[in-house]
Amino acid sequence: MSKQTRSIEVCNSPALMNLYEYSDSIVVIIDVLRATSSMCVAFEHGAERIVPVAGVEETRKYKEKGFVIAAERDGEMIPGFDFGNSPFSFMGDAVKGKSIAISTTNGTQAIHAAKNAKQIVIGSFLNLDALCDWLIRQDSDVLCLCSGWKNRFNLEDTLFAGAVVNQLKKTGVFVSHCDSAIAAEHLYVMAKDDMYDFLENSSHRKRLKRLHIERDIEFCLTPNQTRVIPVLVGEALVKAEEVFS
Amino acid sequence: MSKQTRSIEVCNSPALMNLYEYSDSIVVIIDVLRATSSMCVAFEHGAERIVPVAGVEETRKYKEKGFVIAAERDGEMIPGFDFGNSPFSFMGDAVKGKSIAISTTNGTQAIHAAKNAKQIVIGSFLNLDALCDWLIRQDSDVLCLCSGWKNRFNLEDTLFAGAVVNQLKKTGVFVSHCDSAIAAEHLYVMAKDDMYDFLENSSHRKRLKRLHIERDIEFCLTPNQTRVIPVLVGEALVKAEEVFS
Repeated sequence: MSKQTRSIEVCNSPALMNLYEYSDSIVVIIDVLRATSSMCVAFEHGAERIVPVAGVEETRKYKEKGFVIAAERDGEMIPGFDFGNSPFSFMGDAVKGKSIAISTTNGTQAIHAAKNAKQIVIGSFLNLDALCDWLIRQDSDVLCLCSGWKNRFNLEDTLFAGAVVNQLKKTGVFVSHCDSAIAAEHLYVMAKDDMYDFLENSSHRKRLKRLHIERDIEFCLTPNQTRVIPVLVGEALVKAEEVFS
Repeated sequence: MSKQTRSIEVCNSPALMNLYEYSDSIVVIIDVLRATSSMCVAFEHGAERIVPVAGVEETRKYKEKGFVIAAERDGEMIPGFDFGNSPFSFMGDAVKGKSIAISTTNGTQAIHAAKNAKQIVIGSFLNLDALCDWLIRQDSDVLCLCSGWKNRFNLEDTLFAGAVVNQLKKTGVFVSHCDSAIAAEHLYVMAKDDMYDFLENSSHRKRLKRLHIERDIEFCLTPNQTRVIPVLVGEALVKAEEVFS
């Protein structure tokens, strides 16, 4: 039986997940710059599955099993890995038909923090509309988990959470009693016409600016480039269509 | 020697304080509805000192020492105490010349979470301008700690933190590299012309609405009703003028 109203909440840091009751909820993992954007790109380009791994050395071991391995810490690729965290790495033959193991500063940690969720799904501006359509079709409450930066509040992940709140509330089915969700939606509505400019002074954009990856940022802030819905099944992310048909 | 630039940061939950380096900073404790507002009112009305106490039973023991005792949990006063958390209780002869021991759901917990700060100061809309003037006169970085609601993000405390960020940055002396501070300032600028209306859907306003204390909320959102600066010295809050002359 369908629920009459469903709840949409936002958690601003993996370190605050213990405050939420989410065992019956779908948790949307958000790490806009750049882990969850790159995951969406990989599936759009035909990756078969992505295993998020907490530790770097643990990730390295997947190489022997025939995986493509990716790891990033503090925004930079780690030597010995096939690639880091740039969405442009996760394209074409590099990922097509491949299994990928990935460890990133914040995104994969957030997935592990949400392990008790009913379902974990990957969100980024790249799959925004598709994700919201999919969430509406499910019969569950939704909790958006912003990966943040080393457990701190982070602006770009909050904007994306606000975008999801904004779309889900428009259905009339979702309600929010959560101040984080209200704040995120306000910030998204304020920023949506020029998110790149809005994030000009954000800490992470400054951090990435030093790494000369402005192109990555523009790409990750461009909505609706794919319809893929990466969901966690067991230890691996796969495309939702293969699970829920 | 004065610092060239000083940092202003915002922490959205006492549970995230371990992510901040604040031993050389002044920490502004914020619990707009209603603990830090009531503390400002008490000093404006001649209270001598206020001891913030974590536990309810521990607070009760101060009665024998001649203290006025105040305690609130989940927005409601606790039986056997002189008063709860309403700013209108902390007025007139009830507090004049008195020592007060107080325990509240969030505010006093936040004070304890910030115990390693260089200096702890109490902020609310009631002393906004005076607080900012005082912070500018000190020679320290500033961290605004939002008490939140049971460690969750809370809208009214964030708005006040945003007001402080907004005023301090205008001096040109303070800079912020913290996404929480950027977000708080955006939300404050959006809300400032009608904070009461902006908070209409916030979780805490709904919570307090059930308790019929709309009058408390209007009062707590009215800026600049006092110039008092409550600071922590040892175990007690006192008026800053007595310490820093």
